[in-house]
Amino acid sequence: MTRYEQLADDIEAAVRRGVFGPGERILSVRRASQQHGVSIKTVLRAYAVLESRSVIESRPQSGYFVRARLGAPQGRDLAGAPGAPGSQGKESVSQGKPRRAGAPRQPMPANVDVSRLVLSTLRSIGAQDAVPLGSPYPDPALFPWRRINQYANAIARRHTGWNLIDDLPPGNPELIRQIARRYAENGVSVDPEEIVITVGATEAINLSLQAVARPGDTVAVESPTYYAMLHAIERLGMRAIEVSTHADTGIDLDALERVLAHQKVAACMVMPNFQNPLGFRMPDANKARLVALAEAHDLPVIENDVYQELYFGQTRPSTLKQFDTRALVLHCASFSKSLSASYRIGWALPGRYRAQVEKLKFLNTLTTPSVPQVALADYLRHDGYDRHLRRVRRFYRQQARLMRAMVERFFPAGTRTSEPQGGYVLWVELPPRVDSMRLYQAALAQGITIGPGYMFSMRNEYHHYIRLNYSYPWNAQTEAALKTLGEMAAKMA
Amino acid sequence: MTRYEQLADDIEAAVRRGVFGPGERILSVRRASQQHGVSIKTVLRAYAVLESRSVIESRPQSGYFVRARLGAPQGRDLAGAPGAPGSQGKESVSQGKPRRAGAPRQPMPANVDVSRLVLSTLRSIGAQDAVPLGSPYPDPALFPWRRINQYANAIARRHTGWNLIDDLPPGNPELIRQIARRYAENGVSVDPEEIVITVGATEAINLSLQAVARPGDTVAVESPTYYAMLHAIERLGMRAIEVSTHADTGIDLDALERVLAHQKVAACMVMPNFQNPLGFRMPDANKARLVALAEAHDLPVIENDVYQELYFGQTRPSTLKQFDTRALVLHCASFSKSLSASYRIGWALPGRYRAQVEKLKFLNTLTTPSVPQVALADYLRHDGYDRHLRRVRRFYRQQARLMRAMVERFFPAGTRTSEPQGGYVLWVELPPRVDSMRLYQAALAQGITIGPGYMFSMRNEYHHYIRLNYSYPWNAQTEAALKTLGEMAAKMA
Repeated sequence: MTRYEQLADDIEAAVRRGVFGPGERILSVRRASQQHGVSIKTVLRAYAVLESRSVIESRPQSGYFVRARLGAPQGRDLAGAPGAPGSQGKESVSQGKPRRAGAPRQPMPANVDVSRLVLSTLRSIGAQDAVPLGSPYPDPALFPWRRINQYANAIARRHTGWNLIDDLPPGNPELIRQIARRYAENGVSVDPEEIVITVGATEAINLSLQAVARPGDTVAVESPTYYAMLHAIERLGMRAIEVSTHADTGIDLDALERVLAHQKVAACMVMPNFQNPLGFRMPDANKARLVALAEAHDLPVIENDVYQELYFGQTRPSTLKQFDTRALVLHCASFSKSLSASYRIGWALPGRYRAQVEKLKFLNTLTTPSVPQVALADYLRHDGYDRHLRRVRRFYRQQARLMRAMVERFFPAGTRTSEPQGGYVLWVELPPRVDSMRLYQAALAQGITIGPGYMFSMRNEYHHYIRLNYSYPWNAQTEAALKTLGEMAAKMA
Repeated sequence: MTRYEQLADDIEAAVRRGVFGPGERILSVRRASQQHGVSIKTVLRAYAVLESRSVIESRPQSGYFVRARLGAPQGRDLAGAPGAPGSQGKESVSQGKPRRAGAPRQPMPANVDVSRLVLSTLRSIGAQDAVPLGSPYPDPALFPWRRINQYANAIARRHTGWNLIDDLPPGNPELIRQIARRYAENGVSVDPEEIVITVGATEAINLSLQAVARPGDTVAVESPTYYAMLHAIERLGMRAIEVSTHADTGIDLDALERVLAHQKVAACMVMPNFQNPLGFRMPDANKARLVALAEAHDLPVIENDVYQELYFGQTRPSTLKQFDTRALVLHCASFSKSLSASYRIGWALPGRYRAQVEKLKFLNTLTTPSVPQVALADYLRHDGYDRHLRRVRRFYRQQARLMRAMVERFFPAGTRTSEPQGGYVLWVELPPRVDSMRLYQAALAQGITIGPGYMFSMRNEYHHYIRLNYSYPWNAQTEAALKTLGEMAAKMA
């Protein structure tokens, strides 16, 4: 192939992949000659070939543009490059952007990869018109976007490169102060110097686990557990030991005690408040006993407390951190469930492991983006976070009741539900013959998403359980979706 | 201690730590009673104690406020909580926010912890009036902040929670397309579907390394090398083997070949363009040979190409990726050096490891914050990125010459400098008796920062080398700083 044919093929491939969209200008002949290191003549020939293939058109005085409608491909494998992942050729072109999976296209393998399943479930929520019962996030409409945006807006206007230095780990000082202040107002004494800001609680949990355990180590987790815990363990090459967990009081402390007596456990990861998926509030006596147990075994405890603000009762639940006298608790939390998931602001209170966590934060992502840090600090300082929270708590409490009633009404006999004390998810046990993966796929085909039980354990123990999100306002579509789900489940049962 | 005394002490500790700043309102009696789970009477008593200690004051009809000037502490250890990192008590109060190190306060240990040294150096740049010759970042004043901010601004206005789903890994589709387009315009064929957006190149490098190697594995790196490479290896519990690297042609390929012949190497990490700290541009023939060597050994190569846009010549340098026929190159880059460091937007083109990198991205930080992704996509789509880059390239080229001339003028005999072909850092070899750590500390005391050679190797090979940043406009202060540095070095030599 000649040099100009090669160049023409490269550009055509880029156009068909959507890199240059319909109507967009491509490089001038002079610049293309410079950039590709070929002569002007070669570029002119290549562009002529592309015109003849109806890929580009020249416009007098303006340059060369991608045609609104492309000619048919010339039969060569233009979209595929060596080693590149499967391109979609024409499909991309029609949208002018890379293909994004609205929903998983292939059935899940029998041996479920939890993290891939979770990512697929998340993506499916973005599909048009899907009923997002499978979402792990609250209805975005509940978030005080307008107000948060105003702050982000004002910051973006005055933001400079210096923010990078100011907001280096441990993080933006005013955000740190606001977080400490919030704990203080809730009766939890926190030293601001202990706080490390992270990219969401996800990073906080990852860093905490890495600070206390090594690859190959065993980590005790709840069962069922929030999958981010399993992800962290998987990612770091550790082994999970799943400890049975009561739907109303949390991790079985007798069982945990037996585990600790018989094997070396490097850390324990729990979610004592409004656990996802079970929704319980661990009683204070249990929290105290868990911390005492940890202290007796010198066991670091990673406390995932992202739902701390979404309680249904009168006051914020206690944290393990409050019972901790030896700084063995690494408390992790975020604003993702209460203010903004896409801002990705979380934090860790790592106790005696603070120096390691700060260092790992720096190694992992250097620093957390500045604008989101400062925007949330300003919102917390000036705005009605409490008012917002009072509103959503009331709403979730009502919705939890409604969702339970509707599941009872539409689902087959033998179905049981959790009794959430906070948060916005319901855990539903279906008759044993219903496979939640099959239900997930059948529901997806109807534009309904659910959280299959497979996501919450490595041992596939919850194959007939599902998690439902009740943060979205109840409407006819939700009701119809729940009815459909119930009918599908009844058929499978 | 009674309940009310305990409560008073807790609140006073929070005030003295700066959690509640001077003049700020604390919780109302009613809310405090709810949140702390004590009676109204207990709160009233605690507040009375705090008033008597001159910590708070009550204002009629408004509530309780922190006093502008606090009374002296009562002799108890109010600031220190069990296990909490060293609090600064009164110091915090005077500023109303947590203490931040403007500069490291303690001498470095003999056995240098590279990542702590880097973090200290970064922080020292933020110190007031410091001459930031040690900065790894370009002068923030060079970035097109006003324009980027306008886009961030517009996005912040229309941003909603749905962005989280739209911008899940691999990332915002339009940003991905703009990145692919930029490569295409530079003559590099890239499939947009291969791109994974990350929190800066730091995360891209971490994920790439984790995708191809396991803890305990050996990874070949340049020597000297950019410290983020060493960080990634340290963080993942791997071993670095440092391969000598020429100041003008890059990694010694004969040496690398010998290493590969004699031991198992899991990956190779290089920076072929304008390496930090050496500034070389690896010749195309060497790039081709490196990739061929990698292919012969089935060796994944992590290519850190963050300086790709900052070339001094007429055209963008080639990438290893362009020579790669077997998709073994994991190409990592970011906008941190050319557009905005605090936005933390990087990406990976992981070749055959794409699925693993995307999954690890999801496990590590779930997703990259939305606003920065969309703001940069909009900037790239609509604005003068090329114009901006042409301006800074010209400026850096001039500055490099100037900085070399000044080092020659002010530094002692025996000093040698690199000849950067791009980027904005100069590598300076001092007479062997000059210890760069001592120079760093002496300079810091004079308000000057430098990059000590210790940061660029685990083997402490560059104890008499320093890295200087020349991105800041030359002025009398810079000149004086360089003169001071030269005099200090002469004294130590």
